[in-house]
Amino acid sequence: MSEFGTLESRIRRKSLMKKVMKAEETIQFFKSGMNLGWSGFTPAGYPKAVPIALADHVEKNNLQGKMKFNLFIGASVGAETENRWAQLDMIDRRWPYQTGKDISKGINEGRIRMGDKHLSLFAQDLGYGFYTENGRIDLAIIEVSAITEDCGLVLTSSCGVVPELMMVADRIILEVNTGQPSFEGMHDIVMSQNPPNRQPYLITKASSRIGTTSVPCDPDKIIAIVESKRRDKGRAFTDMDDTSEAIAAHIIDFFSNEVAKGRLPKNLLPLQSGVGSIANAVVGGLAKGPFKNLTVYTEVLQDTMLDLFDSGKLDFASSCSLSLSESPGFPRFFDNWEKYADKIVLRPLSISNAPEPIRRLGCIAMNTPVEFDIYAHANSTLVGGTRMINGLGGSGDFLRNGFLKIMHSPSTRPSKTDPIGITCVVPKAPHIDHTEHDLDVLVTEQGLADLRGLAPKDRAQMMIDKCVHPEYKPIIQEYFDMAKKECLAKGIGHEPQLFDRCFKMQQNLAKNGTMRIKNWDIKIDLCE
Amino acid sequence: MSEFGTLESRIRRKSLMKKVMKAEETIQFFKSGMNLGWSGFTPAGYPKAVPIALADHVEKNNLQGKMKFNLFIGASVGAETENRWAQLDMIDRRWPYQTGKDISKGINEGRIRMGDKHLSLFAQDLGYGFYTENGRIDLAIIEVSAITEDCGLVLTSSCGVVPELMMVADRIILEVNTGQPSFEGMHDIVMSQNPPNRQPYLITKASSRIGTTSVPCDPDKIIAIVESKRRDKGRAFTDMDDTSEAIAAHIIDFFSNEVAKGRLPKNLLPLQSGVGSIANAVVGGLAKGPFKNLTVYTEVLQDTMLDLFDSGKLDFASSCSLSLSESPGFPRFFDNWEKYADKIVLRPLSISNAPEPIRRLGCIAMNTPVEFDIYAHANSTLVGGTRMINGLGGSGDFLRNGFLKIMHSPSTRPSKTDPIGITCVVPKAPHIDHTEHDLDVLVTEQGLADLRGLAPKDRAQMMIDKCVHPEYKPIIQEYFDMAKKECLAKGIGHEPQLFDRCFKMQQNLAKNGTMRIKNWDIKIDLCE
Repeated sequence: MSEFGTLESRIRRKSLMKKVMKAEETIQFFKSGMNLGWSGFTPAGYPKAVPIALADHVEKNNLQGKMKFNLFIGASVGAETENRWAQLDMIDRRWPYQTGKDISKGINEGRIRMGDKHLSLFAQDLGYGFYTENGRIDLAIIEVSAITEDCGLVLTSSCGVVPELMMVADRIILEVNTGQPSFEGMHDIVMSQNPPNRQPYLITKASSRIGTTSVPCDPDKIIAIVESKRRDKGRAFTDMDDTSEAIAAHIIDFFSNEVAKGRLPKNLLPLQSGVGSIANAVVGGLAKGPFKNLTVYTEVLQDTMLDLFDSGKLDFASSCSLSLSESPGFPRFFDNWEKYADKIVLRPLSISNAPEPIRRLGCIAMNTPVEFDIYAHANSTLVGGTRMINGLGGSGDFLRNGFLKIMHSPSTRPSKTDPIGITCVVPKAPHIDHTEHDLDVLVTEQGLADLRGLAPKDRAQMMIDKCVHPEYKPIIQEYFDMAKKECLAKGIGHEPQLFDRCFKMQQNLAKNGTMRIKNWDIKIDLCE
Repeated sequence: MSEFGTLESRIRRKSLMKKVMKAEETIQFFKSGMNLGWSGFTPAGYPKAVPIALADHVEKNNLQGKMKFNLFIGASVGAETENRWAQLDMIDRRWPYQTGKDISKGINEGRIRMGDKHLSLFAQDLGYGFYTENGRIDLAIIEVSAITEDCGLVLTSSCGVVPELMMVADRIILEVNTGQPSFEGMHDIVMSQNPPNRQPYLITKASSRIGTTSVPCDPDKIIAIVESKRRDKGRAFTDMDDTSEAIAAHIIDFFSNEVAKGRLPKNLLPLQSGVGSIANAVVGGLAKGPFKNLTVYTEVLQDTMLDLFDSGKLDFASSCSLSLSESPGFPRFFDNWEKYADKIVLRPLSISNAPEPIRRLGCIAMNTPVEFDIYAHANSTLVGGTRMINGLGGSGDFLRNGFLKIMHSPSTRPSKTDPIGITCVVPKAPHIDHTEHDLDVLVTEQGLADLRGLAPKDRAQMMIDKCVHPEYKPIIQEYFDMAKKECLAKGIGHEPQLFDRCFKMQQNLAKNGTMRIKNWDIKIDLCE
């Protein structure tokens, strides 16, 4: 038995005990070509025992490329599952977000068909039956803490798209995780109706509870129950650096000014913060900063949130997942359960990322893109405009609907071929996930550009003045001046661009290893 | 007196009678540099007498360029007001949408600073005080049908951003329109609180009423009341053509299939339809089609909606404006008031376009872009990527949040230099307002591409197969094959593009007058 209770004590609906089996025994249920749905979100709350057993089976029997599946999961899951599946050529389609070197390689070499979508849309569209031929998911694999007497699924460290999977899955395998405490009571589950019968989500503060603590499940669909003792392989903590600290300082300063002007309440508004070193620095800055009684309404909580709770500044946090590090995050959380548990609610992705509560609450959205351009279009997904990293995630859900829409990035990123680095502020983004209509404030360590109410050319000048790295400033200023002059002269200059030159910096990087071009001249022969 | 009642009968708060004056007498209240907010939306319900009197004053006294204002209005207003102001160099800033040859010229030549934003965001951001230095509007000019005893403003043919103007305007001029019947009872006004105090909008069907029939107004802010008899200069009816009818037929067919598959109810879901010949053809197709008990939840109702009501197929329509043609639209509407009035509700822009009801109701969003690309990014605003036409409007509010997100366009548009026309499906859109993450279905007269659940390369092939004009099909297929080959070989091919060639069709149009290029060769000297 486990120190966290026996499997028997976790399966409170006793008639289900007869469906308990070993992970290896579930391999019989999988057939190549199946559409699979998993629990899990940003490596938290995903099934582990069954996917790993299946991967072992494929490896042992040399079935690489002969057992391929379509994977629909709320967001990324642990590398030991989806990335290992990619290594073993077990993935055909993957929606809507992923993490891992091998899965990314498979996508960018054309072996894995990935699609990304705003996460709130992915969740509901899955429930609408938009992703598969017959609208169904053949098999769902769900990690649970417990099963209630009436067959309610008590989830673990995330909610993901489990409610939608209950709507469209034909068969269900449950993994009961007895290797950690039960998360019972932390979830707020809403089984959303599809239109035209959908009802309002009556969330009016981050701490609002509008649902139930378990997900209703049809017991006849459950074909297997497997015990698992594996924990989430949560991401390692990203250290802060000077650049991130400078960005965070600009943002805290901006908040203070907005409070002074009466445009933000003294305790700000519910915060959404992405992942990574800048997000960590912002949370760190808030822990030391002047604002009290903060709340968080976001999609993922990471280790730094525990620091913010410990600082006494954070009253409550709502999220889709609790994505702590395997160590020290989760042990710290479990050891202090009483301190944190009643200040956190975990919601399904369709609720955590829904425009309705995000806009009503007036979230402050903060995310890091790959790059942004002078007019405030941002690329969040495709390096160089074509190579997928992870996916769009929920950035668009929060940026479109937030009270303030903030993106932050270092002004340059390291390059192997240029000691100054490549610029993250470009004349034209080679791929666009968030448009100029969706962003209010862009920040680099150089400064903060408050673009609210500015016309495109005014935005561009402010971006150059405030955000561009000094080494790139004269280059981008020259482009902007030239584009303005040429376009305005032709009466086509609302948002000036020169389509023969707008990607010259990127082209020069590919050819000569640097974006710091010597001039904007270019000679083009169209070969017609 | 007017046939529609006297000014006295319309001003039911009698103490306000002393503020009645002639339009010319309000000129004293205007000072160059002021921030002005008007009622009005898609030439409906905008002030006319005062703006025209001010324009006459400027013209008569040669004050061109010496009386300039910043104009904040829900959307476009009649050409006799904003376009005339542009002619007379009376506009500095203009948000967030406009119509008119002279205003567009001023924007694209750099004299008028226009910015566009999703209309739902514009409305709320205006109420947040994001658009002006002190967050205030100096003077609001509002067209009303009547003023109630408790100083409620009964609006006319649109609601626009009047509730937000009441929050931020320092002074108010009212135009009481006695040249047409009062619209009293048709509006459903919600004075939305700003976060963190915003409450749910409990709209669960197009016909839900959640507010009041007039807008509360502080009588002390009213500095003048002017009588007006001018009617809205609504747009002329756009005739249908074969292309539009073919597009509409594809869409109706698609709806039938979705109903058959059980993914849409028999009476569909609330419809949002843009403006123009394709939208007219779709509405025309619905009037003759198999679907009954339809509802509409949209931002603008045009003449064709009266046909849909008359067909008996339409039960109810919710909109921000009733933008009928001056003739025959409005006379037909007024003559049959009893038939239409209780089937229409007019809502403020902040409600009509809010993600909350749009997503809850599951609207079917249909809009026409300038162009879209093979990966399903759409350009709705900037011809050639830089020249502003009208603005983004509410297309993004509905496309992002609709149950189905549909864009429709002819496969080609007429060109003066190429008898085949220019293609509206391009390898890469030169400007992007709606991303691949926001669109489900793209349609041209060639066919309908249902892109739901498809990865980028699969989307591109379907777009080429279904939507591209036959003359352009081999050209774009060649680009796509070449881009796939080159990018996949480098392991950067999630969404293949070639940044040296992706705009070659546009560059060739500029140089040689045609997008039908002979080959994809190009020679580039970066001049480094």
